[in-house]
Amino acid sequence: MTEPILVKNLRILLRRPGRVETGASILLEDGRITWIGEQPPPLSKTGYVIEGDTLIAAPCLYNAHTHSAMTLLRGYCDDYELSEWLQYMWAVEKHLTPRIVREASLLAAMEMASTGTCGFMDMYFYPGETARAAASLGLRARLGPVIMGDVDPYKAVEHSIYFAKSLKGLKNIGGVINVHSIYAAPLDAVTYAAEAARQHGLPMHIHVSETRREVYEAKKKYGLFPVELMAKKLNALNKYTVLVHAGWIASWEINLVAEAGASIVHCPTSNMKLATAGHMPAYELIEKGVNLALGTDGPASNNTLNMFLEMKQMVLLQRHSYWDTRIKARHALQAATTGSARAMKLPRGCGTIEEGAPADLVLIDAEDPLIQPTRIDNIESTLVYAATGREVRYTIVAGKIVYDRQRDWERWRRRAAIIARDLNRFIERYAGEKSPTPPTPRTYEPPLTQ
Amino acid sequence: MTEPILVKNLRILLRRPGRVETGASILLEDGRITWIGEQPPPLSKTGYVIEGDTLIAAPCLYNAHTHSAMTLLRGYCDDYELSEWLQYMWAVEKHLTPRIVREASLLAAMEMASTGTCGFMDMYFYPGETARAAASLGLRARLGPVIMGDVDPYKAVEHSIYFAKSLKGLKNIGGVINVHSIYAAPLDAVTYAAEAARQHGLPMHIHVSETRREVYEAKKKYGLFPVELMAKKLNALNKYTVLVHAGWIASWEINLVAEAGASIVHCPTSNMKLATAGHMPAYELIEKGVNLALGTDGPASNNTLNMFLEMKQMVLLQRHSYWDTRIKARHALQAATTGSARAMKLPRGCGTIEEGAPADLVLIDAEDPLIQPTRIDNIESTLVYAATGREVRYTIVAGKIVYDRQRDWERWRRRAAIIARDLNRFIERYAGEKSPTPPTPRTYEPPLTQ
Repeated sequence: MTEPILVKNLRILLRRPGRVETGASILLEDGRITWIGEQPPPLSKTGYVIEGDTLIAAPCLYNAHTHSAMTLLRGYCDDYELSEWLQYMWAVEKHLTPRIVREASLLAAMEMASTGTCGFMDMYFYPGETARAAASLGLRARLGPVIMGDVDPYKAVEHSIYFAKSLKGLKNIGGVINVHSIYAAPLDAVTYAAEAARQHGLPMHIHVSETRREVYEAKKKYGLFPVELMAKKLNALNKYTVLVHAGWIASWEINLVAEAGASIVHCPTSNMKLATAGHMPAYELIEKGVNLALGTDGPASNNTLNMFLEMKQMVLLQRHSYWDTRIKARHALQAATTGSARAMKLPRGCGTIEEGAPADLVLIDAEDPLIQPTRIDNIESTLVYAATGREVRYTIVAGKIVYDRQRDWERWRRRAAIIARDLNRFIERYAGEKSPTPPTPRTYEPPLTQ
Repeated sequence: MTEPILVKNLRILLRRPGRVETGASILLEDGRITWIGEQPPPLSKTGYVIEGDTLIAAPCLYNAHTHSAMTLLRGYCDDYELSEWLQYMWAVEKHLTPRIVREASLLAAMEMASTGTCGFMDMYFYPGETARAAASLGLRARLGPVIMGDVDPYKAVEHSIYFAKSLKGLKNIGGVINVHSIYAAPLDAVTYAAEAARQHGLPMHIHVSETRREVYEAKKKYGLFPVELMAKKLNALNKYTVLVHAGWIASWEINLVAEAGASIVHCPTSNMKLATAGHMPAYELIEKGVNLALGTDGPASNNTLNMFLEMKQMVLLQRHSYWDTRIKARHALQAATTGSARAMKLPRGCGTIEEGAPADLVLIDAEDPLIQPTRIDNIESTLVYAATGREVRYTIVAGKIVYDRQRDWERWRRRAAIIARDLNRFIERYAGEKSPTPPTPRTYEPPLTQ
């Protein structure tokens, strides 16, 4: 039980892209938005009141693709080319321990909560540790073991289901079936995962068509492009499928995605930083009705988990690719809110501020100098192009204040500094090591117990 | 006279890209860095001490291309295509008053100072107002009237010189000869401006090869590409020339720029947001020894003046264009520090932390959660890829603290809110107006008097 929260007399309320008003108040009760209006209703005695006259309320952002514990590897070897970079990452990852993943995940969760992200979909080692870190802060998360390498496809998928079930006791946390990719996991695992995802209502989250090399090798090996392969041979495209990157998706593959009702997660910053080039065809996907989500990817290839910066990056990269401005602030807001929420299979209403929707929202300082001047007519632009994420005053998930700048920032800063010392000691021990092969995920790690 | 400042026992000191140390102290006296070492020298009685154990010291960033008072137009009509966008901008700009430019410039100066920018090179209306705003905060600035439209070329350049001289009384402020472009100013003005720049030691700052349309029209009209035209017909390339954008520069033009010793300012975010496409060939320019600077462009086309975000954008866009990682964090740091300083003709040493150099530096919170974990080996990556600019604790220009987060932020926030109300009233009066022609700059506005 969380106490009711009344946010009073907001300077600006953005309910969803295209619907903005001023002077509104919002009542949050039992994890939901129960009332929005101009005359606040009487609040129960235990209610908490936030004065909204210098605040902007906006829907929460959801990060639909992360390897969040890679905060550990933020700024480590990140000016190398992809293949060399991966070898340095893998060498360190072979030494990962649950404790390091827990600490790195907590650092990630603090970054997300403080920059207005209410939930994330994660793919990394020791997902139980990341689940606990997210739950300790109150964030939503969708996570699970990574299926990759030489594993028994059937057992690996079974384990993912088992893991998802073990998350039941953690509030707002759920499972996802994570398959690394068609090139790093057995193809049978892709097929089983897609079917299990559909049966259990879990997202099936997979990297696909990230590089031209991957596309070339799929074509050479199977005679099909990666998304084609998933659709035509693996029977692995359905409305639970979440395709990450798709920077080299072919035009004829777009229809396959649309027909299946699958989602695509765009990760523009990571794609640019790792120089994968390509073009994620946002406009054509949106036109065909594909659900487009947004993610930062891991902090080793971004190097942030900041969805405000990612929204801007989406518009910038798309405009650069199309040579016109057909992709607008609104598209990025949609991808980062309802688009990601849908890909992650979050409860209906997540990503909008409406009566009856889950009480996920972000309250932003309307008087922060760096986003001035703010107005009702420029609020979408302001959030996408000017905001750095640091303007967030409160992040509220399911009616609970998970971040209150005044209450949390200094405390989190001290905690982050302690974590950082641990992470640095760990990195320094293995710095410079290279490994030509990825670590084998401990797929059969004990399931989560509380 | 400013009192000496001792920054003691720094967690990390980045003197310049590639040279980093720990535990150092820095003494600033009379506007210069007079001592760097491990054992702090005795400080005069009046000196101010900053404890550096949770701080990173880095060279200041300089923003080599701004229209800073366009904070007024931040978030105004910015999802339009370029030509339509310009018509909305121009309509509002026709109503500009000195007071509005002063307020908008002050808002810009607060943004720059608080995000670690020590100086900027500006092109906008009423430059005297912007000069005073910069001086009131203690920033370095290079600014002057805009030569554009149907003006007498000789008189316009003379006036720019006159204006530059009138700035003498303002500390750290200097002139620049601003010519809008080869298509929006008389060609004779470009020639006169380049010659006057050389004679008076002032930068000559001009937009060039920003769009393919500009390149096409120059070729059609003059038989030459824009930079070729400047070099071969206008005699307008010399070491004081600063070419802004150059997204459509041709390979054979690079040699002309290199031979002349001219500088180029890269504005990646603005180019992407306005969908000008093209490719600013950073690698080839650096290889040929061209001085590469970095700028945000105006906050109506970015929409920030944040050089930390711009450094990241430079690497991202370049990697996306080259399909490899040849452009690294270090190149962006160099462009934003010594590159911009050289283009702006700032005093020798600006952009590095060395004994004898001007005391321009930025002190960053080494324990900010969003940039953890920081180490001596990842500090360049951290500053370029992870920092949002909000980690800045102090910005010091010529030995004076122009921004101290603890001292200034709340005060500036209140001031910015008052300015924003004024700017919004102004915008609301003219919202929706369109003008097919640019406003005529008041080239003969009274020169600056203090």
